[in-house]
Amino acid sequence: MPSPEQVQAAVDAYVAAYMENDRDAFLDAFATDGVIVDPVGTPPHAGRDARGAFWDTVHQMTDRITFDVKDVIVCGSEAAMVFRIHAGTADAGVVIDAVDIFEVDDDGKIASMRAYWDMGRATPAG
Amino acid sequence: MPSPEQVQAAVDAYVAAYMENDRDAFLDAFATDGVIVDPVGTPPHAGRDARGAFWDTVHQMTDRITFDVKDVIVCGSEAAMVFRIHAGTADAGVVIDAVDIFEVDDDGKIASMRAYWDMGRATPAG
Repeated sequence: MPSPEQVQAAVDAYVAAYMENDRDAFLDAFATDGVIVDPVGTPPHAGRDARGAFWDTVHQMTDRITFDVKDVIVCGSEAAMVFRIHAGTADAGVVIDAVDIFEVDDDGKIASMRAYWDMGRATPAG
Repeated sequence: MPSPEQVQAAVDAYVAAYMENDRDAFLDAFATDGVIVDPVGTPPHAGRDARGAFWDTVHQMTDRITFDVKDVIVCGSEAAMVFRIHAGTADAGVVIDAVDIFEVDDDGKIASMRAYWDMGRATPAG
């Protein structure tokens, strides 16, 4: 089982990858066969290639995505992150309140990430 | 698949049961074989009897538990609730930031509830 510090570090690596717009760092934060479900209710993206395709699709839709992290609750080998997504540019973008649930493996890599957000609740930024 | 309204109603029923300290309403909010993992990392409580025993244990530890709900994000057949737990009495209690993840079945009953909170982060109320 990962330590609480490993779980926190995995979440930090995931957030940093988005903040720095770093595709490789994003992919490296996950276990090789790690799964993304984003948002929950849509099909999973399992494995590095599928996660890369997911990253590309998201970044084709919007120039830049950043996170305003409100809270990270580490619980066993999992964590819940409460945050606000900022998508778009500085002058024209939206904000969406979201929750991510992470499962972290024994190597401190993300085994799964499940994201809860609803585009219908997006509001204009600023 | 449950409608978004059914998912929201299941979460509302769960919260109302805590607010009204109503054990039967709490048990009725779940499917018969519904599972509680609270907090994540501890053993699951599956089925009505196990959920009732969980409720009793929690309420032996503290007089009263109430929730201050900050956000409920409905996503497919699931929901993430961001909230603050108040445990204890009006003059002597603690508050803990938490996230609950609900899976809701086709009948609008909770199939599983997984709670993320860390007693080490509890702070005195008031």
